[in-house]
Amino acid sequence: MSSSWGNKLKLSIFGESHGPGIGAVLDGLPAGEHIDMDELLAFTARRAPGKDLTSTPRREQDLPRFLSGILEDTTCGTPVCILIENTDTRSGDYQRTAALARPGHADFTGYFRYQGYGDIRGGGHFSGRLTAPLVAAGGIAKQILSRYGVEVGAHLCAAGEIQDDPFDPVNLKKEELLLPGSRPFPVLSEERGRQMRDEIERARLCCDSLGGVVECAVLGLPPGLGDPMFGGIENRLSSILFGIPAMKGVEFGEGFGSARLRGSQNNDPFYMDGEWVRTRTNRHGGILGGISSGMPILFRCAMKPTPSIGQEQQTVDYIQKKDATLLIKGRHDPCLAVRAVPCVEAASALAILDLLLESGVL
Amino acid sequence: MSSSWGNKLKLSIFGESHGPGIGAVLDGLPAGEHIDMDELLAFTARRAPGKDLTSTPRREQDLPRFLSGILEDTTCGTPVCILIENTDTRSGDYQRTAALARPGHADFTGYFRYQGYGDIRGGGHFSGRLTAPLVAAGGIAKQILSRYGVEVGAHLCAAGEIQDDPFDPVNLKKEELLLPGSRPFPVLSEERGRQMRDEIERARLCCDSLGGVVECAVLGLPPGLGDPMFGGIENRLSSILFGIPAMKGVEFGEGFGSARLRGSQNNDPFYMDGEWVRTRTNRHGGILGGISSGMPILFRCAMKPTPSIGQEQQTVDYIQKKDATLLIKGRHDPCLAVRAVPCVEAASALAILDLLLESGVL
Amino acid sequence: MSSSWGNKLKLSIFGESHGPGIGAVLDGLPAGEHIDMDELLAFTARRAPGKDLTSTPRREQDLPRFLSGILEDTTCGTPVCILIENTDTRSGDYQRTAALARPGHADFTGYFRYQGYGDIRGGGHFSGRLTAPLVAAGGIAKQILSRYGVEVGAHLCAAGEIQDDPFDPVNLKKEELLLPGSRPFPVLSEERGRQMRDEIERARLCCDSLGGVVECAVLGLPPGLGDPMFGGIENRLSSILFGIPAMKGVEFGEGFGSARLRGSQNNDPFYMDGEWVRTRTNRHGGILGGISSGMPILFRCAMKPTPSIGQEQQTVDYIQKKDATLLIKGRHDPCLAVRAVPCVEAASALAILDLLLESGVL
Amino acid sequence: MSSSWGNKLKLSIFGESHGPGIGAVLDGLPAGEHIDMDELLAFTARRAPGKDLTSTPRREQDLPRFLSGILEDTTCGTPVCILIENTDTRSGDYQRTAALARPGHADFTGYFRYQGYGDIRGGGHFSGRLTAPLVAAGGIAKQILSRYGVEVGAHLCAAGEIQDDPFDPVNLKKEELLLPGSRPFPVLSEERGRQMRDEIERARLCCDSLGGVVECAVLGLPPGLGDPMFGGIENRLSSILFGIPAMKGVEFGEGFGSARLRGSQNNDPFYMDGEWVRTRTNRHGGILGGISSGMPILFRCAMKPTPSIGQEQQTVDYIQKKDATLLIKGRHDPCLAVRAVPCVEAASALAILDLLLESGVL
Repeated sequence: MSSSWGNKLKLSIFGESHGPGIGAVLDGLPAGEHIDMDELLAFTARRAPGKDLTSTPRREQDLPRFLSGILEDTTCGTPVCILIENTDTRSGDYQRTAALARPGHADFTGYFRYQGYGDIRGGGHFSGRLTAPLVAAGGIAKQILSRYGVEVGAHLCAAGEIQDDPFDPVNLKKEELLLPGSRPFPVLSEERGRQMRDEIERARLCCDSLGGVVECAVLGLPPGLGDPMFGGIENRLSSILFGIPAMKGVEFGEGFGSARLRGSQNNDPFYMDGEWVRTRTNRHGGILGGISSGMPILFRCAMKPTPSIGQEQQTVDYIQKKDATLLIKGRHDPCLAVRAVPCVEAASALAILDLLLESGVL
Repeated sequence: MSSSWGNKLKLSIFGESHGPGIGAVLDGLPAGEHIDMDELLAFTARRAPGKDLTSTPRREQDLPRFLSGILEDTTCGTPVCILIENTDTRSGDYQRTAALARPGHADFTGYFRYQGYGDIRGGGHFSGRLTAPLVAAGGIAKQILSRYGVEVGAHLCAAGEIQDDPFDPVNLKKEELLLPGSRPFPVLSEERGRQMRDEIERARLCCDSLGGVVECAVLGLPPGLGDPMFGGIENRLSSILFGIPAMKGVEFGEGFGSARLRGSQNNDPFYMDGEWVRTRTNRHGGILGGISSGMPILFRCAMKPTPSIGQEQQTVDYIQKKDATLLIKGRHDPCLAVRAVPCVEAASALAILDLLLESGVL
Repeated sequence: MSSSWGNKLKLSIFGESHGPGIGAVLDGLPAGEHIDMDELLAFTARRAPGKDLTSTPRREQDLPRFLSGILEDTTCGTPVCILIENTDTRSGDYQRTAALARPGHADFTGYFRYQGYGDIRGGGHFSGRLTAPLVAAGGIAKQILSRYGVEVGAHLCAAGEIQDDPFDPVNLKKEELLLPGSRPFPVLSEERGRQMRDEIERARLCCDSLGGVVECAVLGLPPGLGDPMFGGIENRLSSILFGIPAMKGVEFGEGFGSARLRGSQNNDPFYMDGEWVRTRTNRHGGILGGISSGMPILFRCAMKPTPSIGQEQQTVDYIQKKDATLLIKGRHDPCLAVRAVPCVEAASALAILDLLLESGVL
Repeated sequence: MSSSWGNKLKLSIFGESHGPGIGAVLDGLPAGEHIDMDELLAFTARRAPGKDLTSTPRREQDLPRFLSGILEDTTCGTPVCILIENTDTRSGDYQRTAALARPGHADFTGYFRYQGYGDIRGGGHFSGRLTAPLVAAGGIAKQILSRYGVEVGAHLCAAGEIQDDPFDPVNLKKEELLLPGSRPFPVLSEERGRQMRDEIERARLCCDSLGGVVECAVLGLPPGLGDPMFGGIENRLSSILFGIPAMKGVEFGEGFGSARLRGSQNNDPFYMDGEWVRTRTNRHGGILGGISSGMPILFRCAMKPTPSIGQEQQTVDYIQKKDATLLIKGRHDPCLAVRAVPCVEAASALAILDLLLESGVL
């Protein structure tokens, strides 16, 4: 465990925020899969910061180089090494807070975990920047899945109290699924999107930040995929989703809402749709007993507000062991849930591709 | 993956609800740990059905036999095999529904998963009965953890709309943590417990069932345990928690609530408590960057309502591929979240013990 | 690691020699595979002791019960639990040597490993008896492989200095492969078999024992299976083969012999045999770069002589920490390589089935 | 599996011989370990080619860059990415043989494995060059082990028919263990070394190559480390050793020799050496039941002769499916066992460090 993940696929992520480079090795891909590099870069660009006021103005290039496993834009079947060299790092922004625990960050826990030897500049290995190689790896997985008729898409379904329209749980179409990802701000309802951006901007002007919820769906999975118990689709997805920083909860289908329902309300009646078994509602989120039902896979991810805020905070100097106040000066996303949308898609695509490879479907 | 789980500990669960026996093999335990068998049986009895109207009246004995790895009530260090022989199984209750998909159950998905070869009597390998060996294995883990000062406890924090008092997130004491488990109905507030039982009984009288939420806490973890990314405590816990049937969501600390907050509200200020770094609030649930902060680990699990209800339901015959109606006659828990409480404790104890063993702490 | 093994298949072996039962859980089998129980018992009988003077006269029944995962002699796809209850155990034979390290045994190392808490009666978890569930699990794998045209067979290719004829490395036929397993004494040449039995009997009459070599082959693997580096067929086979007690070496193809050759002697020339690429010789043992070439997979396993001998031996009392002499009185195989033949077949069948399942071929 | 390995340590190797770079990610190292970079480069230089006539005259720099996980020459505890950029690659040497299967190479099997999509230039991912990152990773492990009193060393114990003196199996000292690695030609007996080099030179002048055997030892392991069955030290070592190209066999202690002995000859008598239990001989190679005995760990690795030889060979064009002759023109080691010596040390160091970390010793 730790920074490695997977069963048939093996993903190993490396790097520190202000080190010479970050990246990933992705082992276990099938051979002969064409990778559309423009599409891949467009996908990674969705995670890149600096596009508008809702994200940090840093200009990370986040341009991944592929050092192995891809020849003439086609997978060789051997491990793919993705390298992103660090270009725009201003350690000065961070070093002043070196011994002060930023509330909500892993500085303090990481200090104990690594007995003080971790490279904590810019969050080090815990930095959100480490999702860049995750997104690049997941972008490859997304393209392979899409070729086999499986589509993964997500949207920002809530920012603070403002909610986007939900995905249609029963009749979700590929167009609706992929629509938010094609927009600068990844929502279904542009009106709600405007309200969200206003809310985020209000937080930013208060030197504050905002939490959010990402809803993700997977279309095209045939029934019968997954494993019982610890190999369920929920176990597989959550094992990688909780690797995304700031992820505080994952719920499938009706999720915590189903805990408030009666069985007669929560059960989804089956019916025959021609030759296919379907359910009239989809509170089960496309998963029963850990295994796909053929209905859309649906889940939501709770993202906490960006912990780095521009207000003075009470904290401690964990080296000198005394109370302190902290004013973080760096540049930070006011709502990291926005850029988490492609991260959730990427992680989910990796989990689903791993499942399909393990199941012998691909 | 599938019915096997773990890193340093390896848990392998086997069995079908109506087969000759169910059980588990737990490999990787430390040697020389005394197991109090009375305490272990008392713990497994918390999961056993038939205690009152809130659970199914079947009299499963669920008495685990230990076939290996334990000599004179002390762990040998070798794999422990736990065997529970099936005694009270009435296949007749189920066989009539053999080809009808019970809504909310894994009949249909399991049928596809195993191409019709699964033993689906009584839910087969997907049955809630399979949590019995999980609880027995987890009971061993709980005793070992307790000896090293780590305590795991849970309570039913909601049944339908009725909520129990929450655990004190900041100053949770061992007594409060273990109180619900010592009671016939596992709640903190006995008044709320009475309301919950009334609500469950109302559902039962309507031939219906009720969902619920289990809150779990871990006390005594020092700061600095866990791993970044995919080895975070959240990843570890959710990888086993989603193996409990009917689990639809897991959230840590403030969870989905934190998605509605601003950073200034959600960040937990640090302060020095003598030599110790603590936080004044605990919305982070004791985990930052996947790693323990020294504050109580806190999380909640959403359990859907028991899918087996006594009302007529619309469904399909998935073999003959036609619509059908179904009336389930068996005996079922009206609120499986009640018996899920020790399951959550057991799964969490296994995950935390695995973490401590992997970390070289035990 | 430890007593668990596998990738797509997960095998977990449990039990102590003189405990209530030994067994295994085998997870990850495909569903719908018919198991011929008579054939399976005949296979496990090949490992059972007591058949003639070359093996121990104990009458272990070693009759496996299948507690789960098999319904009407057909795999369900869920974990198979194999249980062998202990019937003929005479602890008295062993307890006298409790604190004396039997040379060549794991008593002393196991004592340290488990800090004195291991159940060492009869060798405990280190006993050769633990190969009984391995053979039962492997017998299932063998039948599944055979259905898909992959055959695994082995023979005793040396006992002490006496050598059997080798398998034909290039034109090995299924009949030759399976012939030794059909005989009471598993060799190709009955004349050499008689000489081996004489040699073993001579050792036994001297209260001594004899080492041996098991040669194993796999037929029917298409080219292109396996993985580079650590996923090579050699890595996969050796990861389970060294789990057989007394295994001291594994070599593939020409093995240690190839270390004495020049490249021009060791390289196997390719040629076209109709549509198929084959090699004129097979010093590579059917594996190049960890991946099958389509030629027979060939390897040899070195088995040390049974360490329990009837002669007085110099040793120590590792509890009282003093020198001692030891006379082992129990009944033991004079040449455990004989009964290791089906163990090697079983372990190899599991490794190859795991590979085929991982590769998506089955 | 495949190009990833490990339990507590996770090693993931990537790259193709003629691609932009090769390397490895090593996750799970303890934090705070100082790495002597000069010593590390000196170790990797032992594997580098071009030092004399016994190895290929190519001038690979093989200079590893450390992109992450090391700060100021000290491990952070986070994943270490090792990158070796390719500098001296002459694809022209290889492309002519693109469709011709080089006997003894993985061209043909790799072609099937990757359905023709692999990057086969220079052997691609199967190239011996991929041992460069293995050696760099293992060099880190060696330094950490050494700090805790565990030393790993190896020598070329045979080249063709010429044998070096063996390590002293009972009284092996650190000086003897590390002596071969300090020499340009890694042997104990300089006289035998001269004979080996002559023999290798004779093979080279015949446009031929030579096989060899590497003997490796581990000193300083306390008794009681390792796991039973599949977690034995033999399983652990062989799982990584067979990842070294051209490895055809691994034997522990007396190995295949013990198969020719009687028990009375092969058993190692125990005796008390002061407070310590030791054995008078060490045919068991320091391992009993998979677990360390406290005596030196000893094993030998059979390396086949370099398959690339300068003689015309019979082969096939596996794309056009016709017989062909092949004359390999590139530059190749006449005896790859020489450069395999540090590879065996590196792989063994990783396996032993992984064991110590898993055991909670480090």
